[in-house]
Amino acid sequence: MGRSHIDRLTNRTQGAEVVAVADMVDALVEKGAAIAGPNCKKYKSEADLINDPAVDAVFIVTPGFAHKEALLLAIKAGKRIFCEKPLCTTAEDCLEVIDAEVKSGKHLIQLGFMRRYDKGYNEVKAALDSGEYGSPLLLHCTHRNPEVPDSYTTAMAVHDTAIHEIDVTHWLVNDDFVSAQVIMPKVTKYAHAELADPQLMILQTKSGIVVEDEVFVNCKFGYDINCHVVCEDGVIEMPQPLYPTYRKNAQITQTIDTDCFVRFHDAYDDEVQNWVNDAAEGIIGGPNAWDGYLAAITADALVRAQTSGKVETIKPAQEKPAFYD
Amino acid sequence: MGRSHIDRLTNRTQGAEVVAVADMVDALVEKGAAIAGPNCKKYKSEADLINDPAVDAVFIVTPGFAHKEALLLAIKAGKRIFCEKPLCTTAEDCLEVIDAEVKSGKHLIQLGFMRRYDKGYNEVKAALDSGEYGSPLLLHCTHRNPEVPDSYTTAMAVHDTAIHEIDVTHWLVNDDFVSAQVIMPKVTKYAHAELADPQLMILQTKSGIVVEDEVFVNCKFGYDINCHVVCEDGVIEMPQPLYPTYRKNAQITQTIDTDCFVRFHDAYDDEVQNWVNDAAEGIIGGPNAWDGYLAAITADALVRAQTSGKVETIKPAQEKPAFYD
Amino acid sequence: MGRSHIDRLTNRTQGAEVVAVADMVDALVEKGAAIAGPNCKKYKSEADLINDPAVDAVFIVTPGFAHKEALLLAIKAGKRIFCEKPLCTTAEDCLEVIDAEVKSGKHLIQLGFMRRYDKGYNEVKAALDSGEYGSPLLLHCTHRNPEVPDSYTTAMAVHDTAIHEIDVTHWLVNDDFVSAQVIMPKVTKYAHAELADPQLMILQTKSGIVVEDEVFVNCKFGYDINCHVVCEDGVIEMPQPLYPTYRKNAQITQTIDTDCFVRFHDAYDDEVQNWVNDAAEGIIGGPNAWDGYLAAITADALVRAQTSGKVETIKPAQEKPAFYD
Amino acid sequence: MGRSHIDRLTNRTQGAEVVAVADMVDALVEKGAAIAGPNCKKYKSEADLINDPAVDAVFIVTPGFAHKEALLLAIKAGKRIFCEKPLCTTAEDCLEVIDAEVKSGKHLIQLGFMRRYDKGYNEVKAALDSGEYGSPLLLHCTHRNPEVPDSYTTAMAVHDTAIHEIDVTHWLVNDDFVSAQVIMPKVTKYAHAELADPQLMILQTKSGIVVEDEVFVNCKFGYDINCHVVCEDGVIEMPQPLYPTYRKNAQITQTIDTDCFVRFHDAYDDEVQNWVNDAAEGIIGGPNAWDGYLAAITADALVRAQTSGKVETIKPAQEKPAFYD
Repeated sequence: MGRSHIDRLTNRTQGAEVVAVADMVDALVEKGAAIAGPNCKKYKSEADLINDPAVDAVFIVTPGFAHKEALLLAIKAGKRIFCEKPLCTTAEDCLEVIDAEVKSGKHLIQLGFMRRYDKGYNEVKAALDSGEYGSPLLLHCTHRNPEVPDSYTTAMAVHDTAIHEIDVTHWLVNDDFVSAQVIMPKVTKYAHAELADPQLMILQTKSGIVVEDEVFVNCKFGYDINCHVVCEDGVIEMPQPLYPTYRKNAQITQTIDTDCFVRFHDAYDDEVQNWVNDAAEGIIGGPNAWDGYLAAITADALVRAQTSGKVETIKPAQEKPAFYD
Repeated sequence: MGRSHIDRLTNRTQGAEVVAVADMVDALVEKGAAIAGPNCKKYKSEADLINDPAVDAVFIVTPGFAHKEALLLAIKAGKRIFCEKPLCTTAEDCLEVIDAEVKSGKHLIQLGFMRRYDKGYNEVKAALDSGEYGSPLLLHCTHRNPEVPDSYTTAMAVHDTAIHEIDVTHWLVNDDFVSAQVIMPKVTKYAHAELADPQLMILQTKSGIVVEDEVFVNCKFGYDINCHVVCEDGVIEMPQPLYPTYRKNAQITQTIDTDCFVRFHDAYDDEVQNWVNDAAEGIIGGPNAWDGYLAAITADALVRAQTSGKVETIKPAQEKPAFYD
Repeated sequence: MGRSHIDRLTNRTQGAEVVAVADMVDALVEKGAAIAGPNCKKYKSEADLINDPAVDAVFIVTPGFAHKEALLLAIKAGKRIFCEKPLCTTAEDCLEVIDAEVKSGKHLIQLGFMRRYDKGYNEVKAALDSGEYGSPLLLHCTHRNPEVPDSYTTAMAVHDTAIHEIDVTHWLVNDDFVSAQVIMPKVTKYAHAELADPQLMILQTKSGIVVEDEVFVNCKFGYDINCHVVCEDGVIEMPQPLYPTYRKNAQITQTIDTDCFVRFHDAYDDEVQNWVNDAAEGIIGGPNAWDGYLAAITADALVRAQTSGKVETIKPAQEKPAFYD
Repeated sequence: MGRSHIDRLTNRTQGAEVVAVADMVDALVEKGAAIAGPNCKKYKSEADLINDPAVDAVFIVTPGFAHKEALLLAIKAGKRIFCEKPLCTTAEDCLEVIDAEVKSGKHLIQLGFMRRYDKGYNEVKAALDSGEYGSPLLLHCTHRNPEVPDSYTTAMAVHDTAIHEIDVTHWLVNDDFVSAQVIMPKVTKYAHAELADPQLMILQTKSGIVVEDEVFVNCKFGYDINCHVVCEDGVIEMPQPLYPTYRKNAQITQTIDTDCFVRFHDAYDDEVQNWVNDAAEGIIGGPNAWDGYLAAITADALVRAQTSGKVETIKPAQEKPAFYD
């Protein structure tokens, strides 16, 4: 993921240059810097990189548990930050980061929820915002993966998978989630012993909008992302990606993606390009730290619901700071 | 509905003849008999019609509360019966009718769940039964109506609307429901004060298959029936009805039905034709009285769930009689 | 085909009874009569069948060269006739039959162009007749078959295949063809030595409407009938038949028919039922003898065009008799 | 178009910088340079711009009749060239430019046929090149525009409209056209007096592949580009652009583009980015000058066919120089 972002920033982004790479593992620093080019500096310590005056902005692509420290360092240094999800691994850490950003007085952090930059979701958002379909009432989502390794656990269906729908549907309907439930259907024969698959996750917002998300990570057939928004005045269905239609062997067929990086290729590029463009205006146009906190507490509630079988409440520990309005 | 069946039996069914019509209201007898032709007898009493030796089989198209009496009379007379849904209005009455049919030793009753004869559902069933898609795990259904009158209440979303998905999904997956839940999303502005609309109903079977049904009876845009079956080895999506595609006004458009009798026109004809054809072999090929009982207790659980907000248990009061195997 | 019609008339048509079957081959008479039931008379001579007073109407399902004689006998006997295509094998014979029918003063002949009864074509026709799409200008049709035997020749691509589009598009646009051309693309490797396949046939009407028909009879993948009508105010595309959508193996798939009798199953039933129903009013509601003549001269022009490579003129040898207005 | 390219090169292309702008009209120079930024030089004479040592490559976005002179100047100066279509307005001029490029010994010219960079066409090309569908035999294309001004003439349906299918289908099937025909259907009521609209253009290649192109420039409903490739082993249909599906007003609807710059937005960007990237390797990866010549003689034949009503021959005045292999 880190090297993918270095490649993107170097070769497919206007107005950005990767001037330094840091990693505790020397070999990875070398690999990353090789993509960026001969002038790229190499660091072992992320602190040194963050505090290098030649660095205007930082990309945090470390494991989630390491985010907090890097975020606090970068905020202290006043550097703009692109942080891959999650913001932090606990709700408390998220709030600590939020507190630091608010006190810094500058909008610095954007989170890597790339779906907000996907063309399909944006068309759905535009239709919703047009008012032509009235208020959204109910969203049917699917997040299907061909398969997952044995290390993938039931809780990861929330943290690694549904987390995308958590953020993007929150953004689509512009309302906060207040409760979470998880319904466990019959388990597919392809799931290993420790994994409940598929799962039907159900979230509800303050105004009552229900978002359901079928998470099915051993669906075998493809990477299949769907989003149908049932509104008062019509239903909006996000389009599938663009592939030819083939007639062969008594079938009419279209390809379906099997790889999330193919499916959201353009969204990944666009989130980074937009983040670079927004730097000129000093704004964070994408998902911010507060969005990261909301995603964290929503995910926590879903994980509780996976084992309790009950409707779990979602409640932020504090009011949203005016800073994020 | 009665006159519609008389027209169907008279003009679009092979091997059937409407020889008598009964109704407490004389004018309705006249109207019905006029469709059937000059030789059609006219009765005020359903008992007289049922016991007329010229009558081989009876159609019960009275209000639900009146079904039990007519069913028991027809069973006693040994006449084959086509009974519009519901079998009876209480689970107890259903069991009384079942007991009478079992004791009669003859398979007499078919219920008017016409969707089992719809081409689309049958293609889904054939795909499931082929084994090519593995076991079904999760079904996403929608039952959307353009609008309902003010007399339509929250409970009717179960009894008059979801009842169709209750029977047809039970038939599709060939497994009995054991629990029911209803989730209430934000209510559409088009619902009157006494109606929760839309509703998300969730049923689970013995083996764990989850069936969810979005019931939305003021969706405004059309009569929109969908059924997606998520299986271990693929997803099956029931087709929409057959309409041309139009290009006009910067849009590519297909018509969607607005009337259930148009949507299921052929299914209504086919259920009756099949019921007539099955008479020759003395079998009931469609939904039988036990199916009617299961639909009744499932509906009861959903209605309880509408107000309790909890997962309600579905449990038959007795084992399925071997007679219905 | 004969037995298929006997089955249809006996088992799926209201108001008809097959009272007699004739064929020069005794074994075929027996087979046919067996479907119709024990009361069905058996004839060796078609004349005897036609003149049997118990026979109200006749079905002509003999080879094309034998149609003329049977048609003239049936007209003479004043019997209603359902005649499989073609009317006759030469334009002159068609005119002789037309002359006889006109002189009889009764509308007797309906031709077996079943597509006029297909739901999809009828929806296209309804859209055209609504005026909402303005005048049709250009029609793109395909008539694709999985494969044909070695006995199938280039000319049969007109007489056995395109003949259906000739009639149905003439009916759709309600205008007569005045010229024909055939363009020969690269030949598929699956065509035998004597067959040009595919062919692109182009017809033009009096008012200038162009109908093109891709005939591809070794397309391998299915029986694929398409019809797109380009109008002044929009484009109308006939729907494909109704099959589920499957997600499996990185593909989203729909079935396509491979058999014309499956594709047009309902159209075959409906044309016969309508012909029976029309008997009560003494009308011919479907394609009549004049339509058969127009199809014959259009086909003749296409066959000439196959070898000339030029635009061939289509001109009836006489004005349309007022009888057929 | 010029300013659109300046914006693209400046803001959406990696590795390019607009260092100078030339136009005979001072105001246009100012407007263009303003997009490029304060360091952009301003020229009245294209020769001065071309010969500026700071200029590595030139974009020719002048009217077609002015292309030849600019092309020859740039070739003389050894500068890489991106030239909007057409190469030149006569076949002879095209050959003169080709001769100059060949003599220069360097691959310098790329033509602005952006469809070769469209994702949909590239997926069709990939499917064809995979061999899975066998040899292409017949292509059905449409090029529909909502409307054209009164200044648009019948010949422009070739030069401004079909020219895109001429190049892209030639590229798709990798074969040269040898004949052209134009069939004129009934004219739409929306065409002005001097314009035949729609037109059905038919091209055939050396190996016999037929390409037909429905050009309909007052179709009213949208900018509708279709390409169906009929192959020996299946049919490939290029996808429509990606828009949500809406259910509203008894219809299921998708948006169709109305603007070619929206439809091919990404293709325009990608052709320029690829042209810039190819500079590093000194190659022309896109349509070259010989492609431009072939498009010119194909267009000439179609224009002749529009008035002759006959099949017109297409024959290059010379063999393809080995330089372009």
